[in-house]
Amino acid sequence: MLRSHNCGELKSSDINKTVTLSGWVQKVRDKGFIIWVDLRDRYGITQLVFDEKRSSKRVFETAKELSREFVIQISGKVIERESKNTELQTGNIELLVSELNILNASETPPFTIEDKTDGGEELRMQYRYLDIRRNNIRKNLIFRHKVTMEVRNYLNNKGFIDIETPYLIKSTPEGARDFVVPSRMNSGEFYALPQSPQTFKQLLMVGGIDRYFQIVKCFRDEDLRADRQPEFTQIDCEMSFVDQEDVLNQFEGLISHLIMEINNYKVGVFPRITYNEAINNYGSDKPDIRFDMKFGNITDKAKGKGFKIFDSEELIIGFSIKKGASFSRKEIDNWISWVKQPQIGAKGIVWVKYNEDKSLKSSVDKFYSENDLTEWIKIIDADPGDLIFILSGKTKKTLKQLGELRLAVAEKTGLRNPEIFAPLWVTDFPLLEWDEKSKRYHAMHHPFTSPKKEDLNLLNNSPEKVRANAYDLVLNGNEVGGGSIRIHDSKLQKQMFNLLGFSDEDAQSQFGFLMGAFKYGAPPHGGIAFGLDRLVAILGGKETIRDFIAFPKNNSGRDTMIDSPSLIEKPQLDELGLELKKI
Amino acid sequence: MLRSHNCGELKSSDINKTVTLSGWVQKVRDKGFIIWVDLRDRYGITQLVFDEKRSSKRVFETAKELSREFVIQISGKVIERESKNTELQTGNIELLVSELNILNASETPPFTIEDKTDGGEELRMQYRYLDIRRNNIRKNLIFRHKVTMEVRNYLNNKGFIDIETPYLIKSTPEGARDFVVPSRMNSGEFYALPQSPQTFKQLLMVGGIDRYFQIVKCFRDEDLRADRQPEFTQIDCEMSFVDQEDVLNQFEGLISHLIMEINNYKVGVFPRITYNEAINNYGSDKPDIRFDMKFGNITDKAKGKGFKIFDSEELIIGFSIKKGASFSRKEIDNWISWVKQPQIGAKGIVWVKYNEDKSLKSSVDKFYSENDLTEWIKIIDADPGDLIFILSGKTKKTLKQLGELRLAVAEKTGLRNPEIFAPLWVTDFPLLEWDEKSKRYHAMHHPFTSPKKEDLNLLNNSPEKVRANAYDLVLNGNEVGGGSIRIHDSKLQKQMFNLLGFSDEDAQSQFGFLMGAFKYGAPPHGGIAFGLDRLVAILGGKETIRDFIAFPKNNSGRDTMIDSPSLIEKPQLDELGLELKKI
Repeated sequence: MLRSHNCGELKSSDINKTVTLSGWVQKVRDKGFIIWVDLRDRYGITQLVFDEKRSSKRVFETAKELSREFVIQISGKVIERESKNTELQTGNIELLVSELNILNASETPPFTIEDKTDGGEELRMQYRYLDIRRNNIRKNLIFRHKVTMEVRNYLNNKGFIDIETPYLIKSTPEGARDFVVPSRMNSGEFYALPQSPQTFKQLLMVGGIDRYFQIVKCFRDEDLRADRQPEFTQIDCEMSFVDQEDVLNQFEGLISHLIMEINNYKVGVFPRITYNEAINNYGSDKPDIRFDMKFGNITDKAKGKGFKIFDSEELIIGFSIKKGASFSRKEIDNWISWVKQPQIGAKGIVWVKYNEDKSLKSSVDKFYSENDLTEWIKIIDADPGDLIFILSGKTKKTLKQLGELRLAVAEKTGLRNPEIFAPLWVTDFPLLEWDEKSKRYHAMHHPFTSPKKEDLNLLNNSPEKVRANAYDLVLNGNEVGGGSIRIHDSKLQKQMFNLLGFSDEDAQSQFGFLMGAFKYGAPPHGGIAFGLDRLVAILGGKETIRDFIAFPKNNSGRDTMIDSPSLIEKPQLDELGLELKKI
Repeated sequence: MLRSHNCGELKSSDINKTVTLSGWVQKVRDKGFIIWVDLRDRYGITQLVFDEKRSSKRVFETAKELSREFVIQISGKVIERESKNTELQTGNIELLVSELNILNASETPPFTIEDKTDGGEELRMQYRYLDIRRNNIRKNLIFRHKVTMEVRNYLNNKGFIDIETPYLIKSTPEGARDFVVPSRMNSGEFYALPQSPQTFKQLLMVGGIDRYFQIVKCFRDEDLRADRQPEFTQIDCEMSFVDQEDVLNQFEGLISHLIMEINNYKVGVFPRITYNEAINNYGSDKPDIRFDMKFGNITDKAKGKGFKIFDSEELIIGFSIKKGASFSRKEIDNWISWVKQPQIGAKGIVWVKYNEDKSLKSSVDKFYSENDLTEWIKIIDADPGDLIFILSGKTKKTLKQLGELRLAVAEKTGLRNPEIFAPLWVTDFPLLEWDEKSKRYHAMHHPFTSPKKEDLNLLNNSPEKVRANAYDLVLNGNEVGGGSIRIHDSKLQKQMFNLLGFSDEDAQSQFGFLMGAFKYGAPPHGGIAFGLDRLVAILGGKETIRDFIAFPKNNSGRDTMIDSPSLIEKPQLDELGLELKKI
């Protein structure tokens, strides 16, 4: 080893030891007759001293050449530091250098390697290897490692077996777009990269593996929204001989364990609400329940009182903001402008202030009596000092708008506290959703999700009403996991494919292997998959997944560091039997 | 859960308990008035009893329908078994069934789900999900899981951080052929799947991560030889501020630990030999040292004695076979035919029997005296009772032929014992090898391997003589790992690319990011990668990696279960801006 110790471990008890360290020059302070250098590695920072009197001339002269990000190896004696630095692990000591060896010089880096850097996102991505040297990013990557180790050891202890499923699989048109991989040995044919190992984990259950997990890369060729990646990582799990209750309990255990081990934060039993409750109470299928602000539906109470805007609308609904009665007129106006922006698209907000002295003031005082407003307050559950925001319109749209408003107000008022963890199960998702564009039903989760037994009779005539044995785990307003009990009956699976518009031949050619497998004794099974990138980000108190990925891609799916994707040579295309389409 | 216990855990102490089990019907023995069923799951087998007298009519009638691989759930009372089965974990008890629920029927499987199955390789691959139900395959997959858990926990304890590197990277013509992935969002451009995360792990070292590991899928689009897979798994590791000695010690620790934990087998300090020693002593860069049979070079002693065949050859070399003097003439003739087969291509074997009574008998008695042969025996290190096999010819070819013969004889005489583990470091590989086809040097390991300091002066004039800081870990005659100390200097890296025939522009466009990174303070670093599939197979006492992969591909790179690769639809090609070449 080019070191006897690392840069984070020397303490008072090491004083007078002769040690060797290697690392990067973080900072040089040259006073002419004395030079201090902060030496950095993954483990910490140690202060080096080069002294005209106490160091050899050769060493002192070489030290004069040092500059930021040089890689050096030094030997020297640990001495007591005069002005101790309590913020540094090694703040009680410094190192009087007797040998200095420049292992590699460095040009001036394009941005400063500091917690607060002067480098913009784009520059930092292009030089990601330098960005990773910064504490923030390095700590995030180590944090991610800790989470995955905990996940693996927890699941291993529960009898889950880590099994690798293939990456070169088969393209299917259901779901998002696949990345494909041309096959040279089978010219004209393509593999696809997995969007998830869904069918393979089900086949492992058919194969009697009983409990499976894998932390695995998945791929989706979607137009990237902010903070989406074309390749992402899943904690993928599946169990046999279980019903929904078993899966929820098993993985509630995992997530509680993680939050305790990683964040030292105790969460109780996870609340559970149905999809319908989530939509009606929070305007979202992934409600953030770190705060309350539950919706109250006042449609019945608010209609027919002469306020034309409400009278003509389908839904009138609101929530209360704790201590919001103190909002200024200007603040309220800002929120009204906020909901009017095209991304939200509401026409305005009706508001009611329920003052500390229990007096009431609203933007619709002309139309509603104090009694009316008191009824609203009861339904919306406001206390003295609160402010109520109300939106109205078409049901689906209004719920969504109010959900967005709820989040924005919570964000602004500091309720989205990253140190609080509020997990939530959302259950009973619809099995199908109607897609206007393709004029057919799509699977809300995926085509392998089992309908609820009690809704099976609706499958032919009212398929949109059928609920699935499907569930999401929501953490602080983010969907971090989702799963279902699967279909294990080949006839039901075939019926499902038909509902989704597959012809028998298409179903057979694309999923014949799965329906075939179901004919040879498939056990009842179900599972869940967690989005590791997002889960780690939230546990780390952030919402940007990119900060927890070593080498992320930008919003056009490019890796600007290695400059990929890129052109390939014609002979390579020829070998694959492909040509680029002329435009 | 659809069970209270699994099929492997009920014991005498559970007698009289009422339990619920779920699993597969392994076997039905119907005696008319009594039916025994072996119920199987991942954990074991439990014997069920259906009795005309003691079971309800309904249950007994349903039991009559049961057949192999039906999935059932049963409840019943644990009772003592009359004829105990000591080979079964649960052999002391059986279950008198009171409730029977058929969870899923099964058609007759295409092969029997037994340790010794009647299904051929091809059929079993097509129905891999059924093959996995067999003990052998399931045990292999669980074994693999145990190995990977041990690897992760060991490396985590040593301060290595598991970091995921990207799968959608950039195609480079160096090395094997890449699988490429067309980019839809960047039309006409391609990603490539990684052949290994080599450059990324080096960038992590530049990024100060210090110790990295990852168990990661890699991809090579090669024409498949037997037992190669287009996607395979590596244990990929890298360390900073190390020299070769540190890497060897670190990973010798890992492999010793695995062999102890997994196989309860103690290996001592790993022997080390150089590449040249390996070739000269064993005719292979991955010698199997579970047995000795080291080569002895008798060229000097055997030439000039009038035996023309030897007189005209470059190399005369042999090894001794313990107790081989008892080989019959026919056996020896068989070996002579064996070396003459085209895959080996030798002209014959010269043999010497050193009998127990110390008398000598050889196939060249006409030309060599007892004194001559005694000299050979000393060099080749034979004891009384041994047989010596000698080949001659061009040096490189002869060494290879003798290496093959050595392995074949060892195999035949039972020396390749899968229960013995003999690891070996092979070091000092040549940096480059000349490629006749492309008329240029190729990197023997990869272009990032550092030359030995003491050979740097040979780099310009005798590049073929330069040795690399490169090493392989060989286990029982298989290369299970390989690595090197890397170049961390941008100038040396550029020189290396030039030696490999890269123009400056090509080097820049393909590896500019790496050479750029080396300008900002790259630390000395090195690492290793293990082929997990092979390592697991050898630890598991087998040499076929396919048995340790859940869903392997066949020799044409096809997954016959899901029927992939396959055609994709024209609209999908259009979106990618591609067309198939007309042939």
